[in-house]
Amino acid sequence: MYVVKSPLPDADLKTVAEALQGALVDLIDLALVAKQVHWNVVGPRFRSVHLQLDEVVDTARMHSDTVAERASALGVSPDGRAATVAAGSGVKAVAEGWVKDGDAVGTLVDALGAVITRMRERVAATETADPVSQDMFIQITADLEKHHWMFQAANG
Amino acid sequence: MYVVKSPLPDADLKTVAEALQGALVDLIDLALVAKQVHWNVVGPRFRSVHLQLDEVVDTARMHSDTVAERASALGVSPDGRAATVAAGSGVKAVAEGWVKDGDAVGTLVDALGAVITRMRERVAATETADPVSQDMFIQITADLEKHHWMFQAANG
Amino acid sequence: MYVVKSPLPDADLKTVAEALQGALVDLIDLALVAKQVHWNVVGPRFRSVHLQLDEVVDTARMHSDTVAERASALGVSPDGRAATVAAGSGVKAVAEGWVKDGDAVGTLVDALGAVITRMRERVAATETADPVSQDMFIQITADLEKHHWMFQAANG
Amino acid sequence: MYVVKSPLPDADLKTVAEALQGALVDLIDLALVAKQVHWNVVGPRFRSVHLQLDEVVDTARMHSDTVAERASALGVSPDGRAATVAAGSGVKAVAEGWVKDGDAVGTLVDALGAVITRMRERVAATETADPVSQDMFIQITADLEKHHWMFQAANG
Amino acid sequence: MYVVKSPLPDADLKTVAEALQGALVDLIDLALVAKQVHWNVVGPRFRSVHLQLDEVVDTARMHSDTVAERASALGVSPDGRAATVAAGSGVKAVAEGWVKDGDAVGTLVDALGAVITRMRERVAATETADPVSQDMFIQITADLEKHHWMFQAANG
Amino acid sequence: MYVVKSPLPDADLKTVAEALQGALVDLIDLALVAKQVHWNVVGPRFRSVHLQLDEVVDTARMHSDTVAERASALGVSPDGRAATVAAGSGVKAVAEGWVKDGDAVGTLVDALGAVITRMRERVAATETADPVSQDMFIQITADLEKHHWMFQAANG
Amino acid sequence: MYVVKSPLPDADLKTVAEALQGALVDLIDLALVAKQVHWNVVGPRFRSVHLQLDEVVDTARMHSDTVAERASALGVSPDGRAATVAAGSGVKAVAEGWVKDGDAVGTLVDALGAVITRMRERVAATETADPVSQDMFIQITADLEKHHWMFQAANG
Amino acid sequence: MYVVKSPLPDADLKTVAEALQGALVDLIDLALVAKQVHWNVVGPRFRSVHLQLDEVVDTARMHSDTVAERASALGVSPDGRAATVAAGSGVKAVAEGWVKDGDAVGTLVDALGAVITRMRERVAATETADPVSQDMFIQITADLEKHHWMFQAANG
Amino acid sequence: MYVVKSPLPDADLKTVAEALQGALVDLIDLALVAKQVHWNVVGPRFRSVHLQLDEVVDTARMHSDTVAERASALGVSPDGRAATVAAGSGVKAVAEGWVKDGDAVGTLVDALGAVITRMRERVAATETADPVSQDMFIQITADLEKHHWMFQAANG
Amino acid sequence: MYVVKSPLPDADLKTVAEALQGALVDLIDLALVAKQVHWNVVGPRFRSVHLQLDEVVDTARMHSDTVAERASALGVSPDGRAATVAAGSGVKAVAEGWVKDGDAVGTLVDALGAVITRMRERVAATETADPVSQDMFIQITADLEKHHWMFQAANG
Amino acid sequence: MYVVKSPLPDADLKTVAEALQGALVDLIDLALVAKQVHWNVVGPRFRSVHLQLDEVVDTARMHSDTVAERASALGVSPDGRAATVAAGSGVKAVAEGWVKDGDAVGTLVDALGAVITRMRERVAATETADPVSQDMFIQITADLEKHHWMFQAANG
Amino acid sequence: MYVVKSPLPDADLKTVAEALQGALVDLIDLALVAKQVHWNVVGPRFRSVHLQLDEVVDTARMHSDTVAERASALGVSPDGRAATVAAGSGVKAVAEGWVKDGDAVGTLVDALGAVITRMRERVAATETADPVSQDMFIQITADLEKHHWMFQAANG
Repeated sequence: MYVVKSPLPDADLKTVAEALQGALVDLIDLALVAKQVHWNVVGPRFRSVHLQLDEVVDTARMHSDTVAERASALGVSPDGRAATVAAGSGVKAVAEGWVKDGDAVGTLVDALGAVITRMRERVAATETADPVSQDMFIQITADLEKHHWMFQAANG
Repeated sequence: MYVVKSPLPDADLKTVAEALQGALVDLIDLALVAKQVHWNVVGPRFRSVHLQLDEVVDTARMHSDTVAERASALGVSPDGRAATVAAGSGVKAVAEGWVKDGDAVGTLVDALGAVITRMRERVAATETADPVSQDMFIQITADLEKHHWMFQAANG
Repeated sequence: MYVVKSPLPDADLKTVAEALQGALVDLIDLALVAKQVHWNVVGPRFRSVHLQLDEVVDTARMHSDTVAERASALGVSPDGRAATVAAGSGVKAVAEGWVKDGDAVGTLVDALGAVITRMRERVAATETADPVSQDMFIQITADLEKHHWMFQAANG
Repeated sequence: MYVVKSPLPDADLKTVAEALQGALVDLIDLALVAKQVHWNVVGPRFRSVHLQLDEVVDTARMHSDTVAERASALGVSPDGRAATVAAGSGVKAVAEGWVKDGDAVGTLVDALGAVITRMRERVAATETADPVSQDMFIQITADLEKHHWMFQAANG
Repeated sequence: MYVVKSPLPDADLKTVAEALQGALVDLIDLALVAKQVHWNVVGPRFRSVHLQLDEVVDTARMHSDTVAERASALGVSPDGRAATVAAGSGVKAVAEGWVKDGDAVGTLVDALGAVITRMRERVAATETADPVSQDMFIQITADLEKHHWMFQAANG
Repeated sequence: MYVVKSPLPDADLKTVAEALQGALVDLIDLALVAKQVHWNVVGPRFRSVHLQLDEVVDTARMHSDTVAERASALGVSPDGRAATVAAGSGVKAVAEGWVKDGDAVGTLVDALGAVITRMRERVAATETADPVSQDMFIQITADLEKHHWMFQAANG
Repeated sequence: MYVVKSPLPDADLKTVAEALQGALVDLIDLALVAKQVHWNVVGPRFRSVHLQLDEVVDTARMHSDTVAERASALGVSPDGRAATVAAGSGVKAVAEGWVKDGDAVGTLVDALGAVITRMRERVAATETADPVSQDMFIQITADLEKHHWMFQAANG
Repeated sequence: MYVVKSPLPDADLKTVAEALQGALVDLIDLALVAKQVHWNVVGPRFRSVHLQLDEVVDTARMHSDTVAERASALGVSPDGRAATVAAGSGVKAVAEGWVKDGDAVGTLVDALGAVITRMRERVAATETADPVSQDMFIQITADLEKHHWMFQAANG
Repeated sequence: MYVVKSPLPDADLKTVAEALQGALVDLIDLALVAKQVHWNVVGPRFRSVHLQLDEVVDTARMHSDTVAERASALGVSPDGRAATVAAGSGVKAVAEGWVKDGDAVGTLVDALGAVITRMRERVAATETADPVSQDMFIQITADLEKHHWMFQAANG
Repeated sequence: MYVVKSPLPDADLKTVAEALQGALVDLIDLALVAKQVHWNVVGPRFRSVHLQLDEVVDTARMHSDTVAERASALGVSPDGRAATVAAGSGVKAVAEGWVKDGDAVGTLVDALGAVITRMRERVAATETADPVSQDMFIQITADLEKHHWMFQAANG
Repeated sequence: MYVVKSPLPDADLKTVAEALQGALVDLIDLALVAKQVHWNVVGPRFRSVHLQLDEVVDTARMHSDTVAERASALGVSPDGRAATVAAGSGVKAVAEGWVKDGDAVGTLVDALGAVITRMRERVAATETADPVSQDMFIQITADLEKHHWMFQAANG
Repeated sequence: MYVVKSPLPDADLKTVAEALQGALVDLIDLALVAKQVHWNVVGPRFRSVHLQLDEVVDTARMHSDTVAERASALGVSPDGRAATVAAGSGVKAVAEGWVKDGDAVGTLVDALGAVITRMRERVAATETADPVSQDMFIQITADLEKHHWMFQAANG
């Protein structure tokens, strides 16, 4: 059924499609993880961390929409279903239950760090294949690295 | 660690906690499913369905936050991680790939129907255990049944 | 044509449908009556009463939409046509022509009182049949009783 | 009681008063009809038609207020009661029950057409009697004819 | 110096210029009178009248700007200086000092009535000379007559 | 003087009136206590606690208005005077002077806990007497329990 | 514990501290009294008085925050607890129960008058001790005297 | 295909259709010319002229939409394609390249003057044919003549 | 009739009343003069001066309301009628007709300068009589001196 | 006259200037074509397509401003006149008259596709010549490809 | 060149000018210091301190504009250049590099304390020289002392 | 103390850090210079230049925050202290005292030109070292070059 003739040659398209699909899964999981900690954090820094986490959720949700619609725009069906996310995310699974504020901050430092590493690989991978998608990965990386700094500073 | 003395007796708390955790998983998955179809729908009704789905996403995200924070308020740690959602959702998994607009509407009719049935059970289950939580389930049901009507009418 | 399988058993549905249809007619007529007096009131309290009436109009219009769409959500076609309203409203017909401010306030005290009585019957009637619809009637009653107080106080 | 010395001679006032009262009844009924269809429409174009109808409701409600207050400003008591509307509207009564989207659009094409014809007669009738009221009828006609086009185009 | 070649023939321009200059003076004075009463009104209806008067001020200021800039647009220098207003206004001078609320309302009924009479003459005078200016006078008259009704009704 | 015929039978009214009056006193005092601590808190968590307390103030002020106006709507004069609050509040008096941030959080945990216990009794007491008032108590309890969680988590 | 080295010499600080603490108690009680009358007023001027009172509440709440935080800024712990207010307010206690609109206005004239007298004494007392605090008292007095005029005019 | 039965007789419709199509072309070109000068103006008055031109663009774009949709509402297909505009505009072509601020103002004086002349002819032409369309031309003329004054005054 | 017992002794009240009444007349005339020039200015700086003048109008209107209501608050009836303004303003009358931009700026430099001189005298005159009124004169002076600088700079 | 010393060497400037001028013409025509179809579309999908087209207009107008001002910033006079657009656009001319909704969608798919192809060439052409301009082309391409997807999906 | 005849005698002007120039330098440096710490703070209180510092930046920037424009209004050229600030600020230089949250708070306590001391001297110095400038220094002092309290409380 | 493991290799990090620190100093000084001229400009173009300069201030402040936080995100402490800015800025020092409008524009043309040259060097220097930082420099350059054009055009 429905086939879009992509503006990209097949090889480039394959590269870009993988990068977008990977980013989609990472960003959805990042939003889920940040919400999970948002609800479960306890400790004297509760309020600061609770609020800071919702800003990560906003960033991750906004960019997951961007990359999924970018995939559609290139004629590639995006996959953001729960099972796909559970199986393919680059974010390490977090433990269930309450989490102390310092550990919560550490969890985010790790989660953001993991996603940033993969996102920078996508920046490199798509440079010649599609500068339009690359520009999106660059801007996503900028936002994630800003969050990364803030959580590191909060544990500094 | 961190223990809240709940305002509810243990038996009531167990009932309410299960209802809230179940609702959390259903609502997170509903949001993921609605986004998945939002990105993959094609056909002459594309724009209407695409926009209508984002309203379901807004409803589901808002209420998932409500029920998770309600669990925390009762001293019960909520679990909204990807693997938990993938394993426990009441929404039937959707197929990957593009979906025709009529099928997209049908998918939502089914997904909303399934969540509504379970949510009405939670309304009944929590009536005596905790009228505060029950009131939340009632309002969630009202919102979901309104969306349910609109998707049914759109395939009517 | 178009048939929705309602989440309610038939007997409950009949009860709820009658309550919703009755509320719809009452609320549309309440809005029409409040507008009629809004345009025809005269006297030293003109401005206060004129403005106060538009707040009743806003409440009545908002809730008439709520109950009509609730009927649709249960698979019951709502009827808000002029002839239906003229025939079935629980609000006593108001006289034509200019109305003195004190009489205008009295008219609203009566109209609101009549609708409140019927709305409280609907709260009772739908308690077991459909707690979702009942919750709507409870909130409508709260709003109407607040208006009722204000008009009574204004003639106190 | 309360008598305003109108800025218009008696004959002109009679003409203008009839035009305003007729417009009031038509516009109130147009709002009721548009809401009725807004709640009862079904079919693949449900969402578009449902939203488009609320724009007609907004137009009709805004202008019904304008013409009623214009009547009051000329010293003529406006009559917008349910029974008056049911008896005197220029809009053909719509059938009860669900309505398919194409029929819904057709219903509005007819209803708007009927009101426009009468509104244009009011433009002509009031030209010399009261250019202020005429200007209102001209602007109402402009708005209604824009809606009329959009519904015709949607069935074109 | 600075001369604009007007789009109107000389005779028409003279007619329109007089109408605009007259309206400018009336509207500036109406704003001053309404503010004067706004500050000096006393009595149980103080708050209602005080607020209602500021709405007249808003209307009068907005339209004085409109007619002055319309004069400029036709190449006619508008004159809204205090001495010109004091000498040429169609509004009867109000007495100094505090004013009871009922008298305040009566003052406005008179002031608005006087300006409306002159504004309707301007509507008639400019019909053939300049339909653009006439349309402005028609809209100003509509607004003033609405205020006029409200103050009459408040003393009704 | 001024007597409202209440929609409730006398016995029910007595129950509901006591619940509303009790809630009014509790909520006014909760707002005063939260402001007192808002001004006197010191320590490294100053800013978080200072801001969090103003959200409690907003909640308590909003709901004190709701319950007082609900009493009026039932024909019962509400009493929110300083002496009444000082004498009848369910919140334990707080000490004068500066308060360390951890103690400030503890003070709120206690104050909210005390009000919640009494509010849940009001939910139970009014269930059959007046579902409209009960619904208000349910929503107030939901809001207070959310604040209660956040302060407990902040000391967790 | 926590000691701020105040920018003011001890004698000046004592003067300013007493003025600020006194203003705090007066303003909190003014807000409580205005709310009490807001809920209990009846009579034909109900709506005007009801709304006007909420503007007093807004003024009193805003300024009570200003003076309390000013005390903290000078290193003086503010005391706004219910018992302190009940014992030390300069506002005469109001009677319980419903109050006719004219009496309601009179109550506010008296309450505002009492607070203004004391506030003007604070303006004088702090002139040399602390021009920053004095400036706050001047602005509070300006706002209160504007309200005072409006209530006097309403009973004029 | 798609045929609307116009509310106007054929002769009137022909007159009105020509006027609307002519206005559409003039207004689109006016917007393009104003943007062209907006980008190319230089000189000490750069910023004022640059900003003033964007207000002309807003006016021209808004009214081009109005007249095009008015044509559609009368059943006449509007034509606003680039080639049609290039061939039929009443605005004299402007030279390419940078333009000094005084010349830029002069260009707009000429362009607005040309469109106004034609727009006034349309006001006259449609007076009996369609007062609804005429009213639009009157309001467009009012806006254009205001801009015309401002550019003339800026070179005065 | 209506007499307010002023918080000021008679001699002080007389001083303050004269200052307020004088300020009222100056500020109303300043607004009229600024509008007059706003409409009549021509020349290359038209747009800048035209806009800058409306900011003076806003300042003058806002502060005329402040001083008039301050007079009322002290029990002194303010007089802002056209004849009073024409007779008593401290602003030199401006010539009729178009005014070149440089002259327009000069007119405002002079008008603002004249009002500032008188306003500074009022600051001095009311220092001991009423610090509340003095504070208003200080803030008005600050605003006027800022405008004064901007017009001087524009002719610098 | 007016010469800007560009930050780019001559050869690079020539490349970038051609790209910007070409993009300007394409984007202006895209806006004109989208508006043309916006006014002329008919059929059951009328409302969706009508609204979707205005979003293309917004995108095209915003970016045409961006590229024209970028050209000016590099010292190159942009040319967006009607004749230039009619002669040089990369968008195929559309037929006059009404257009069925499916054809309307197809027209946009083609128009967007043509502009995207040329815009991607500009991305490639300016990579080394001017990364600042290239970044603008990348972002324009991203927006256009998103619209392209949505119209393709709507005909999918 | 450009000379403003100041409203102040020379001796007063000299006093006020020095005070304004000194305040300008202090406030610009305060904004730079607050931003420096905003970027370099680390530690568990990172987020609270980071946000709190931006509120100081807003205050300092707003008031630096106020005092600079006040100087201009008195005919005195303000000097806010980097070298002037570096040479003349009353704020002690901060060390380069990361700063722990507690030290960051301490830095602000010191910086605000230093500026407040000097600002209070300016309040005293300008009392007779220029009450308008003094009033600005009073309000700046109020704002700074509020920030000072909050940072002291945060280290309390 | 506090060390972030940067995502960049050491050599790249050194390059990027120097570029960011240089940009920070340039942008802070650009904001200070633009404010300095904003306060000191005189002449007939005063208002235009005064307003235009504040837009440069907004741009420079926004981007100085961006680059400083980018440095922090890479683990490099940013230095934006007054002495650092005074010593290292790429903007030529401006003379003290009043500045004629034409010279003010020229000053900005020079200042922007100097910063743009250095910013383009940073775009080139960071291309391979860090595309994320490069993208920020590209966007900063785009904004600065737009301002540069506008000031050049204003002196053209």
